[in-house]
Amino acid sequence: MKIKRIAIDTHPENTAFLSRGGNGYSPEQFQALRKIEIGNGTVSILATLAIIDDAALLEPDMIGLGEQAFRRLGLPEGAEVSFRQAPVPHSLEHVRRKIDGDTLDDADIHEIIQDISAYRYSPMEIGAFLVACAGFMTTQETLALTRAMADAGRRMRWPAEIVVDKHCIGGIPGNRTSMIVVPIIAAHGLTMPKTSSRAITSPSGTADTMEVLAAVDLIEEKLVAVVEQEHAVLAWGGRMNLSPADDILITVERPLRIDTFEQMVASIMSKKLAAGSTHLLVDIPIGPSAKVRSQREAIRLRKLFEYVGHKLGLVLDVVFTDGSQPIGRGVGPVLEARDVMAVLRNEDDAPADLRERALMLAGRVLEFDPALEGGRGYARAMELLGSGEALAAMERLIDAQGRRKEVLEPGRHHHEICAPSDGTITAIDCHLIARIARLAGAPMDKGAGIDLLHKVGKEVRRGEALYRIHAHSETGLIFARELATAASGYTVTP
Amino acid sequence: MKIKRIAIDTHPENTAFLSRGGNGYSPEQFQALRKIEIGNGTVSILATLAIIDDAALLEPDMIGLGEQAFRRLGLPEGAEVSFRQAPVPHSLEHVRRKIDGDTLDDADIHEIIQDISAYRYSPMEIGAFLVACAGFMTTQETLALTRAMADAGRRMRWPAEIVVDKHCIGGIPGNRTSMIVVPIIAAHGLTMPKTSSRAITSPSGTADTMEVLAAVDLIEEKLVAVVEQEHAVLAWGGRMNLSPADDILITVERPLRIDTFEQMVASIMSKKLAAGSTHLLVDIPIGPSAKVRSQREAIRLRKLFEYVGHKLGLVLDVVFTDGSQPIGRGVGPVLEARDVMAVLRNEDDAPADLRERALMLAGRVLEFDPALEGGRGYARAMELLGSGEALAAMERLIDAQGRRKEVLEPGRHHHEICAPSDGTITAIDCHLIARIARLAGAPMDKGAGIDLLHKVGKEVRRGEALYRIHAHSETGLIFARELATAASGYTVTP
Repeated sequence: MKIKRIAIDTHPENTAFLSRGGNGYSPEQFQALRKIEIGNGTVSILATLAIIDDAALLEPDMIGLGEQAFRRLGLPEGAEVSFRQAPVPHSLEHVRRKIDGDTLDDADIHEIIQDISAYRYSPMEIGAFLVACAGFMTTQETLALTRAMADAGRRMRWPAEIVVDKHCIGGIPGNRTSMIVVPIIAAHGLTMPKTSSRAITSPSGTADTMEVLAAVDLIEEKLVAVVEQEHAVLAWGGRMNLSPADDILITVERPLRIDTFEQMVASIMSKKLAAGSTHLLVDIPIGPSAKVRSQREAIRLRKLFEYVGHKLGLVLDVVFTDGSQPIGRGVGPVLEARDVMAVLRNEDDAPADLRERALMLAGRVLEFDPALEGGRGYARAMELLGSGEALAAMERLIDAQGRRKEVLEPGRHHHEICAPSDGTITAIDCHLIARIARLAGAPMDKGAGIDLLHKVGKEVRRGEALYRIHAHSETGLIFARELATAASGYTVTP
Repeated sequence: MKIKRIAIDTHPENTAFLSRGGNGYSPEQFQALRKIEIGNGTVSILATLAIIDDAALLEPDMIGLGEQAFRRLGLPEGAEVSFRQAPVPHSLEHVRRKIDGDTLDDADIHEIIQDISAYRYSPMEIGAFLVACAGFMTTQETLALTRAMADAGRRMRWPAEIVVDKHCIGGIPGNRTSMIVVPIIAAHGLTMPKTSSRAITSPSGTADTMEVLAAVDLIEEKLVAVVEQEHAVLAWGGRMNLSPADDILITVERPLRIDTFEQMVASIMSKKLAAGSTHLLVDIPIGPSAKVRSQREAIRLRKLFEYVGHKLGLVLDVVFTDGSQPIGRGVGPVLEARDVMAVLRNEDDAPADLRERALMLAGRVLEFDPALEGGRGYARAMELLGSGEALAAMERLIDAQGRRKEVLEPGRHHHEICAPSDGTITAIDCHLIARIARLAGAPMDKGAGIDLLHKVGKEVRRGEALYRIHAHSETGLIFARELATAASGYTVTP
């Protein structure tokens, strides 16, 4: 059969099209054919089959390929291919054993991850694997999963002997310390090629906030050139094909909201390994509305990180931080970028908590440098920030990545949420603040978000503004205001 | 937007198409829109979104609907509809809790099954629910699942006070007792509207074998008319919309090969409840290659059946049978139908084991009749079979459902698998025999399958034929022969 390109995009899945007539298949057979393998003996892909009933769309002797399938197969239109019912990946037997309660060995997990990376699993099959793992997973399985995920993609190599990174397990709005830590480390001269994610369920990821100031969607050559010149980068990691299995797993973990510690560690560590890091600082915020809710949980997570890190030869430092309320004032890309620059510029009213947290983390990262071992990192971080060297490094980074020409402003529609009574702010719910900011339009609308005017511990009067919602669109403001009016996220105790 | 019908069949999923240009959506937004709800305020469906890049296929102000989506929405082409990002079914929160290890209550499970029946879950989400349940499920949850599944569809009502049914949990090739039991029961005058499934992973289901003789794909009016006239029917159940949730769950259970006892009981009992049965005989074959491998497992399964049956007000009889080897001689639709008719015709060389098993089961079912209580069922079954009344009932049933005009023959390509040495046949592997028969082409090719020439206990000489593979196509024969040569499924002990 000959390939015909069909201008239909079924991201993220491959779709192939066959004409119903003239193939000699019965409806039952088509049903059994639901997934097919198409190839020419040299290259092949798997695709979900759709049947076309319109001869104008597809001739009987042709096989249509949707955009993804056409691109991934990589053959020209008209090329001769054959197809067959897709073989069931053998590794699904391991998944079935895992569902039955078995423990898998390294080879089993390696095979599963190889098949997932090669798009041989359907979302349903990936979900089955993840849910079975969520039920029970040994540390040995977690290690095997991490290694298999790192092996499935490419690895970046850097000339420096020490390549540092930091990772926060997230969940705390406004926690944009990376954008302060990276320039401090770069100013010191350590190599820190920081690739970050965009927001998945939060109002902004480091990549979204950095994008307010500079290009973050860099091709690899560009990223390498920036690191060569500036020792650092603050880029979006999505383009680098680091741990592609993780990128696929996330498309299923996200809607199912699976985030067990085991999958979290495998995801983070596989990406760091693939990114060529040798030293990693892991920041675990603890708080009632953070991902980790107690010291006990945090210790379990730290042990898992340390076990996997040790086995993979990564130098690891794990730090527990206060995750009881948002960090800084701004929540959402533009507002967070404002806070970050205020700290780097040493402005008087820069958010003290963001500055403090960033200095502490930068200090820990700096101590990966043998010259600063033994507690001298914090002082060095203070020095680099206070002297303006960190700011200068950030400005160079922005120029190297590509400075954004227009200056983005907070959304012009705004609304203030006020204290319901006199009292003291005793709690701020990170989840609710994040949801309100997302309803306002963050991170799609860069200027949308929340400006927190007061934080925990502050005494307020009845009717005094607690925070301001910003949105670009009126509907965004209405949605966010509705939720904020019903549940502001602030607890004011008289 | 206006509806345009797109002649693309994406069974079993609904697919909607939007043109990429002119909608004002960014690629990220399209990605977030992956699943949309389309409707006009009165009716609505959920569909997976695909993007069309070709203006010739779809105008920017139109929304395309694939065949399933068009049919399920039920509005004419050109009708005005709007769409929005599909709301995440609230019941997914319960699924997430189940993944986390919680036990669900009746209302949670009811809500999940309602959403699944309304096509609000993706295969991935269904898989997550099933795998989480496979990890752990209480009897109370199993009962709730059964009830919710029966409630999700329609229920058939019959005028008779006693409506009997039998169900074999399967896994034993050639075990076509229903086609003998049903005519015996019908001849006696009890009501037995037997709906059966087609083969899923086996070489033939009762519906596939019955189809060799008569139409089984009956519309409801026809089915009801046959039962009215003959007290019985032997039809395919797929058209009746009994427990539609089960039909959806099966599409995921099958590829993941999930068949825990809990899901098996919920699936079977919900269908029987929906089919209007009041009395049910469950046949549990036990054997090393059957679904149930030990007496201990069988007892656990029986208890679960009894608990759920009792709570649902169904009179239940559970019988353990020998599942150590195939029943009868033929495996595959035509060969099995031949055996069934030989038994009904009281032919001398009719397979004795099939006759014996069918008589025993028919006897147990007959004892649901108060007039035969206390062990008189078997004698009555013998009487009805021996006198030819059962055969006459079968012939009437075949005529009522619609007799197949042409006589189907076993596949003309055949090959015999022979004993490797002198000895006694000590075991026949049900799995392997089933796989070989499927490779030969069963159940698609009605005449494909296996004719077992000797069974366990028989002494054979080296080179003597053990069984004969039949296939319609030469490729089918080659595939089956390859597997059979590598692993015949027979153990011959010298």
